[in-house]
Amino acid sequence: MIAAVLCIGTELTRGEIVNTNSTWLSEALTGLGAEVVKTAVVADDPERISKTLGALADDADVIICTGGLGPTTDDLTSQTVADLLGVPLERDEKSLDAIRERMTRFGRKMAESNAKQADFPKGARILPNDDGTAPGFSVTLGAGTDAFFLPGVPREMKAMFETQIAPGLALRAPGNIAQIRLKTFGYPESRVNDELAGLEEAHDVIIAYRAHFPEIEVKVLARAVDPEAAAARARAGASAVRERLGGIVYAEGDVTFAEALGEILVERGLMMGTAESCTGGLVAELLTERGGSSAFYAGSIISYTNAIKHSALEVPMEMLEQHGAVSQPVAEAMARGCAKALGVDVACALTGIAGPGGGTEEKPVGLVHYAVATPAGVTAKHRVFLGSRDQIRRRSAFAALDLVRQTLLADLEKA
Amino acid sequence: MIAAVLCIGTELTRGEIVNTNSTWLSEALTGLGAEVVKTAVVADDPERISKTLGALADDADVIICTGGLGPTTDDLTSQTVADLLGVPLERDEKSLDAIRERMTRFGRKMAESNAKQADFPKGARILPNDDGTAPGFSVTLGAGTDAFFLPGVPREMKAMFETQIAPGLALRAPGNIAQIRLKTFGYPESRVNDELAGLEEAHDVIIAYRAHFPEIEVKVLARAVDPEAAAARARAGASAVRERLGGIVYAEGDVTFAEALGEILVERGLMMGTAESCTGGLVAELLTERGGSSAFYAGSIISYTNAIKHSALEVPMEMLEQHGAVSQPVAEAMARGCAKALGVDVACALTGIAGPGGGTEEKPVGLVHYAVATPAGVTAKHRVFLGSRDQIRRRSAFAALDLVRQTLLADLEKA
Repeated sequence: MIAAVLCIGTELTRGEIVNTNSTWLSEALTGLGAEVVKTAVVADDPERISKTLGALADDADVIICTGGLGPTTDDLTSQTVADLLGVPLERDEKSLDAIRERMTRFGRKMAESNAKQADFPKGARILPNDDGTAPGFSVTLGAGTDAFFLPGVPREMKAMFETQIAPGLALRAPGNIAQIRLKTFGYPESRVNDELAGLEEAHDVIIAYRAHFPEIEVKVLARAVDPEAAAARARAGASAVRERLGGIVYAEGDVTFAEALGEILVERGLMMGTAESCTGGLVAELLTERGGSSAFYAGSIISYTNAIKHSALEVPMEMLEQHGAVSQPVAEAMARGCAKALGVDVACALTGIAGPGGGTEEKPVGLVHYAVATPAGVTAKHRVFLGSRDQIRRRSAFAALDLVRQTLLADLEKA
Repeated sequence: MIAAVLCIGTELTRGEIVNTNSTWLSEALTGLGAEVVKTAVVADDPERISKTLGALADDADVIICTGGLGPTTDDLTSQTVADLLGVPLERDEKSLDAIRERMTRFGRKMAESNAKQADFPKGARILPNDDGTAPGFSVTLGAGTDAFFLPGVPREMKAMFETQIAPGLALRAPGNIAQIRLKTFGYPESRVNDELAGLEEAHDVIIAYRAHFPEIEVKVLARAVDPEAAAARARAGASAVRERLGGIVYAEGDVTFAEALGEILVERGLMMGTAESCTGGLVAELLTERGGSSAFYAGSIISYTNAIKHSALEVPMEMLEQHGAVSQPVAEAMARGCAKALGVDVACALTGIAGPGGGTEEKPVGLVHYAVATPAGVTAKHRVFLGSRDQIRRRSAFAALDLVRQTLLADLEKA
């Protein structure tokens, strides 16, 4: 099954918004076993839409097209497809009723511009939209290419694709797909890639990478006619990946790094707190990004000034003067002070220079000291992280959380 | 000047990474006065690359193409372009020296796969890459289309486009472009759009919107042969936009909401602190996102538990029991306690239910109480924000910072 994606909209060709629809559809189609050979974006221009649809139909068995189904004069998709097929537009009364009913429900009157959204190329199959006013439709182009037309609003487009298009495409795919997602932190993408060399061939799987800076997600994908065979092959491939990558794999599936750490804390009945300086709240934000974090996370003291490091975290002023705020003794004192001030079992502290200003030869931009205090003692580390302010902050936050994770796992082994 | 963008890479057609290059190039080309009529993404397949390049050359005066210039066997761009032009590949010794020198500098030996990156279609103009091993090149396709080939790594691609391509294209554009960016917070995009109806025609400008949730950036763009006329027209358009939108415009140019607030604080010699609950560090993170924040921001106490609200922020336990943690008295007490604990002039506090769990009929998910304490007193507000956990947290954080901003501006008017 050869597939193509076409996104219509001048806001896209002008670069005003990032085209997430195209990425989402490409991934969804690949997951259904299709080979996506081309995606295209064109401005709201009937001639270009028509020409591009014709060219894609020459190449692909399936085209998914988004955008241009709205009520304004810019929205030209239905008329363009009708012209391409040489058929008139026809109003669909059922769709018109649905649009009217939806607008009444939201206290609005249906304008003629909205009624136009119930016009479709004669003979098209209509795809209802439960989340918005613009229904979609599908037609056959050229020598048997199925073309599906969906609204450009991502939420509506995704729901319609998943319920009305994906099930049919899945039946046409040459087999069943099984996929396992492994979340990793610790190596750059190139190293992950090098470590996994040869596994695709050895296990007959596809291995794909997705970077969510600074994490790398490894997807192991197997295809077989028998769904159980596909699942078993994906599982064997994932085990081989885990073996090669060792401790840097922190979870499987849709689990964040903070959630994986949270699981360890919850298992052991520990509450955690943080004391941040250069990361300015990023560690706390990562820890509370998902719901349920109050089961293992108590809070943070963000001490952007020495005065607060002293008053709230009890870091001695002499220590701050002697070693400077960015130093191992201060990171350790912050961790101990945090555990005491917040009454937590595990405390993680960071102090560093995120830049772009504030670096010296001795303490360059990117230098970060971090420490974790547990009932077993205090562990400290430091690194000089490279990159922009944002990258330095993200790298530091993940490195500090990783130190907590490694410390807890090591404590567990010792116990 | 009609332009097109082509991005090459199977990682893109599989949807493994979001195509930010395409958006960035479309915006940059539009800013240079070009009309981008089409962008395309194709897999690493010589036949499709060749066919797509040919089709784009029929339409466009300029094509910018990214990807496929790396050292691996997947990287086929140079060979494909040579075949399309009917010329052989030729090794460029100067590029080869640069690649060897770069690899030596990073302590690596140059492999034959890297040497291949110095091979270009005969007659191509070479575009050196100061940030990576893959140089780019340009050729003329069809009846005079200039095609530029750049590496897919965004940092390298952007630097090469800006220094080696943009200056030449700017000279060819039909006039000069002046652009003013206004940053707004407070209205959804549809309302901003409605408020500005008719301004494009009245001032002969293009008005474009970019959403950085929950902010909307309004770009006012004017084009004229005389650069001063373009600037004057953009300025007049921007003034009209400011008049229509009033206080929701918080800055012009590349300034974050937190930086705009920081400027007000610095002007008045005030230090600010925060006390967060449901936003879990997001407000602190926004305030410290850019360098220089230590001039106006002291730190935060993130109190995810009632115990910390009491111990670190001196919120009375009876108050927590009587009104609950998510209540106006507690938000106000947190703000007062924060000002005292951190020794700051201005304190902002938030307490709410970010979800997805934890809501009740009386206190639903999305309910957030926030308060700001200044030397003049305490102001509190509450809202029920809609959306996902992430959206509720971002909306709350911006609303609370906006309350600080409005309070300080109102204090200033009174004084």
